[in-house]
Amino acid sequence: MPLRVIAFDADDTLWVNEPYFRDTEKALYALMQDHFPEDVVNEILFKVEIDNLPLYGYGIKGFMLSMIEAVIQLSGQALPITFIEQILLLGKNMLDKPVELLDDVEEILAALQGRYRLILATKGDLLDQQRKLMKSGLGKYFHHIEVMIDKRESDYQSLMTRLDIEPSEFMMVGNSLKSDIVPVLALGGHAVHVPFHTTWLHERMEDIPKHGKFRELHRLKGLLHML
Amino acid sequence: MPLRVIAFDADDTLWVNEPYFRDTEKALYALMQDHFPEDVVNEILFKVEIDNLPLYGYGIKGFMLSMIEAVIQLSGQALPITFIEQILLLGKNMLDKPVELLDDVEEILAALQGRYRLILATKGDLLDQQRKLMKSGLGKYFHHIEVMIDKRESDYQSLMTRLDIEPSEFMMVGNSLKSDIVPVLALGGHAVHVPFHTTWLHERMEDIPKHGKFRELHRLKGLLHML
Repeated sequence: MPLRVIAFDADDTLWVNEPYFRDTEKALYALMQDHFPEDVVNEILFKVEIDNLPLYGYGIKGFMLSMIEAVIQLSGQALPITFIEQILLLGKNMLDKPVELLDDVEEILAALQGRYRLILATKGDLLDQQRKLMKSGLGKYFHHIEVMIDKRESDYQSLMTRLDIEPSEFMMVGNSLKSDIVPVLALGGHAVHVPFHTTWLHERMEDIPKHGKFRELHRLKGLLHML
Repeated sequence: MPLRVIAFDADDTLWVNEPYFRDTEKALYALMQDHFPEDVVNEILFKVEIDNLPLYGYGIKGFMLSMIEAVIQLSGQALPITFIEQILLLGKNMLDKPVELLDDVEEILAALQGRYRLILATKGDLLDQQRKLMKSGLGKYFHHIEVMIDKRESDYQSLMTRLDIEPSEFMMVGNSLKSDIVPVLALGGHAVHVPFHTTWLHERMEDIPKHGKFRELHRLKGLLHML
C-alpha cells in the first residue's frame, strides 16, 4: 500500500529536549561538587532512574523524584533538608522552559501536511507534552496527537489498530533507534532515523538496522527530498 | 438526538482513588506529629498543591513533589534530609496500590456495553491511569480511553469533536460536579452525578445544578434503571 500516514517523534526530533535533562544534571553535579564527585552522582542517578522507570515512566516529574532519591542516598547526614529545595527548583525550571524547535521543522510539516496524514507520536508525561505542543505552535499540522506510555512493538500495534492504519502505509520519523525505529520495522512499517547529538544512555543502541524500509537522514529536511 | 455515547470518570466513580490520597496525608501527619500539628501541615500542603497544579497537573508524582516541598517549607533545619525518604516511600506505595472497584461496576459496564459506546474519560497522570485501567480489568468494556489534562468545557469540546459526537448524544457519569457535570451540561450534554464520600477540597462545589439533562444518583447501579 502507498504511504499514507507519517508519525513524528517530538522530543529531540521536532524540538530540543534531552539537552535540558543533561543541563539539569550538570547543575545538580555543580550543586553537589563540594560533597561528591560528578561520576559518583551520575552513576547513582542513572541507577535510581532505571529502577524507577516502571513506576514513574518518562518525564520531568519522575526525573525530579529520582534526583531527590539519588541525592538522599548519597547524602546520609551530610546535607541539610533544604538542599532538596534546589532540586525542586531545577525541575520547575525545566517544566517552565520554552520550546526550541529544531531546524526547518515548521517548513517541513507545512510541506507534508496536505500530502499525508501527520501524527505526533511522543512518549512521556501527558501534561509536559501537551504544554510543549502548545508552546511549539505545531498543533495545527497534526491530525492526531498520541502521548504513548512506552514505544514498544505492542504500543505501535495498538496505535495503528485504533487509527485504522496498515503498517505498510505507516512511516515513523524519530531520533531513537530503540523507540522510533526498531519496533516499527518489526511490524512492517517504514522508519526514518534522524539522529540527535544527545541521546539518553537508556535509549542508545549500537546496531544500525539493515532493512529495506529503513532510512537514516542527517537532517530532518532530507524527508522532503526522500518523499 | 438519542443518547449514543456514555463517558465514565474513573477515579472515585469506577474505582477508589481519593481515599488513598487522604490515607497518605494522614501518614504524613503521623510522620510529622512530633514537629508540627496536623492542621499546619494540612494548610501548607494544600497551598503548595494548588500553587503547583498548573505545573504538575493531577496525579501521584505531582502530589509526591508537593508533599516534599511542603515538608521542606515547614522544616527549616528541624528535620534531616533522610526524612524525605519516607515521603518517597509513601508515594511509591500509592503508585503500587491495587485497584479497588466500586460496587457493581463490572456488572453495570457489561450491561451497557452492547447498547452504548462506552468511553473512559479520566484526568491525571497517563501512566498512573493506564496502570489502574490495566489492573482493573475493565479495559475490554471501553471503546475509547481518554486521559485528559483537565476537564474544562474546552477539553470536553475537543474530545467530542475528535470522536465525532454531538453533545446531545453524549452523557458523562462522574463524582465531581466541577469536573464531570458542570462543563458537560454547559455544552448541551447529559450528566449524571454519583457523589463519592471523599472529594478533594479543590473539586468541591456547593451548588447542585438545576438542569433538565442533569441527574443525581446515590449509587452507580441506578444508571441501569435510568437508561
